[in-house]
Amino acid sequence: MVTITAYVADSAVAQMLSGATDVEILTTVDGSIPEGVERAQIYVPKFLAGAPKTDVLAAMPQLELIQLLTAGAEVWIGQVSAGVTLCTARGAHGAATAEWAVGALISVLQEFPQFTRNQLVGRWDQHSVDRVEGKAVLVVGAGDLGRQTKKRLLAFGAEVTMVARTEREGVQPISNISALLPDHQVVMLMVPVTAETVGLVDAAFLALMPDGAVLVNAARGVVVDTEALLAATKSGRLLAALDVTDPEPLPADHPLWTAPGVFITPHIGGSAPGAHQRAARVALAQIEKFVQGEQLLNVVSDQGY
Amino acid sequence: MVTITAYVADSAVAQMLSGATDVEILTTVDGSIPEGVERAQIYVPKFLAGAPKTDVLAAMPQLELIQLLTAGAEVWIGQVSAGVTLCTARGAHGAATAEWAVGALISVLQEFPQFTRNQLVGRWDQHSVDRVEGKAVLVVGAGDLGRQTKKRLLAFGAEVTMVARTEREGVQPISNISALLPDHQVVMLMVPVTAETVGLVDAAFLALMPDGAVLVNAARGVVVDTEALLAATKSGRLLAALDVTDPEPLPADHPLWTAPGVFITPHIGGSAPGAHQRAARVALAQIEKFVQGEQLLNVVSDQGY
Repeated sequence: MVTITAYVADSAVAQMLSGATDVEILTTVDGSIPEGVERAQIYVPKFLAGAPKTDVLAAMPQLELIQLLTAGAEVWIGQVSAGVTLCTARGAHGAATAEWAVGALISVLQEFPQFTRNQLVGRWDQHSVDRVEGKAVLVVGAGDLGRQTKKRLLAFGAEVTMVARTEREGVQPISNISALLPDHQVVMLMVPVTAETVGLVDAAFLALMPDGAVLVNAARGVVVDTEALLAATKSGRLLAALDVTDPEPLPADHPLWTAPGVFITPHIGGSAPGAHQRAARVALAQIEKFVQGEQLLNVVSDQGY
Repeated sequence: MVTITAYVADSAVAQMLSGATDVEILTTVDGSIPEGVERAQIYVPKFLAGAPKTDVLAAMPQLELIQLLTAGAEVWIGQVSAGVTLCTARGAHGAATAEWAVGALISVLQEFPQFTRNQLVGRWDQHSVDRVEGKAVLVVGAGDLGRQTKKRLLAFGAEVTMVARTEREGVQPISNISALLPDHQVVMLMVPVTAETVGLVDAAFLALMPDGAVLVNAARGVVVDTEALLAATKSGRLLAALDVTDPEPLPADHPLWTAPGVFITPHIGGSAPGAHQRAARVALAQIEKFVQGEQLLNVVSDQGY
């Protein structure tokens, strides 16, 4: 007996969700709004679709749940009617992004970008390089991504301190960060975009990082004040690995491209093979909870989670 | 009561060993042979000093132990008189080299060298990249380096198979390798240089690796047939990360520098900060065993270990 209707805008994901019981899945291959959408209680927007479309939302008066396929929800905050629950696909992309973050940290410490440039000119420049082993790493954000990253860092012999908005076992409150920064040679950003995290890494934050420290941004570009980062890296005092930038995409003539000691990848963190499948599995589990009337996971609160 | 004399050619390491009890440590800052060397039962050559010097060995008629500061002993095999025990500093460099190997694997799979080249021209080319997670990885060599690498790979969700000369629990015999290669997307070389490992990775070996597989060489350049690797990478069929090459250093005009999908670092694996200290700690522990008449560790056998 079908009781619930879900509009799944991504037809590939809709295919993966076709195994859900007691759910009618609506989709279209061309991205147009499907027939019957007025019955939909659930809406799954396309993966990385960007800002919500108001005409699509207006076509679903029965809407109760918006289930995203991404871990970030920043473009949806404040765009959702009262009575509609917004949920992320937290857990779908954490492992892939953690792998980027640890790999990018090793690359910067072991000077892989410099060795790639040497390779272009056939230059064998053997010298001692730095390591993750023994480093004190501050992971900012203790969600799925932060925890997945911690697990990998520990395997390399790093010492990991976690901070997040809410203090809990093994996680210090973000209010302690000024005291923690001077004792950590690496800072890894793994926070969602909220009113508190936009511009979190400003000139004062960077000034508290010790000389030679590395900033790794696996969160969103707007968490870092780009001008302040440019100033701190131009002098060679800090290093950085960035998968996200502000603005994004980074224009060809942006000074961040040529900032010394800055390694940039074009927002590849969550783009691993199987990302669609993993996100679809999270969405499927959520839809089944909705059908059963169980408590939903990864709900984005009004405060911005 | 001093009963044992050790000639420690590296004066910095000699300083670190000065805490050894009942041992007279001889060294010189300029590298010349110190006075009293004829009393030496122990010789610790310089870190990465290259081939043994026959005049130095001839000056130590009492010599019983040569304690290396490196994990590899290939330049010493066959150069040591009967009655002299040759030992490596196995365990001193495994963690650092494992970090290189896993970092280099992530870099190749996630196309970091390509993103570095894009960064040089300000190009933001966002696309999906590959991951370590879920890969079947064949680690060839089950010594300290192989085990340290396995631990880190498991944290990333890889499946790890180990092979070595001697079959034991969790380690398959090298004789199985032809059957194993087609099922592994990554091969990591972590073997010592011996008669059996020189040229181990030849055209037939590479042909058994599946399309798109990655070869990581953290061992020594001569373990791989360079011409065969050039042929397999030129076609784009295989990828590689090499910290060691044959020849080494790689001449500026060598075709390996420009082989597609090949990432090269200049033998930095064991060159981490603290490498001297770690090697000195291993040497100190060994010297203390020698003084106490205990069984020595990391002995290189006549067969080449």
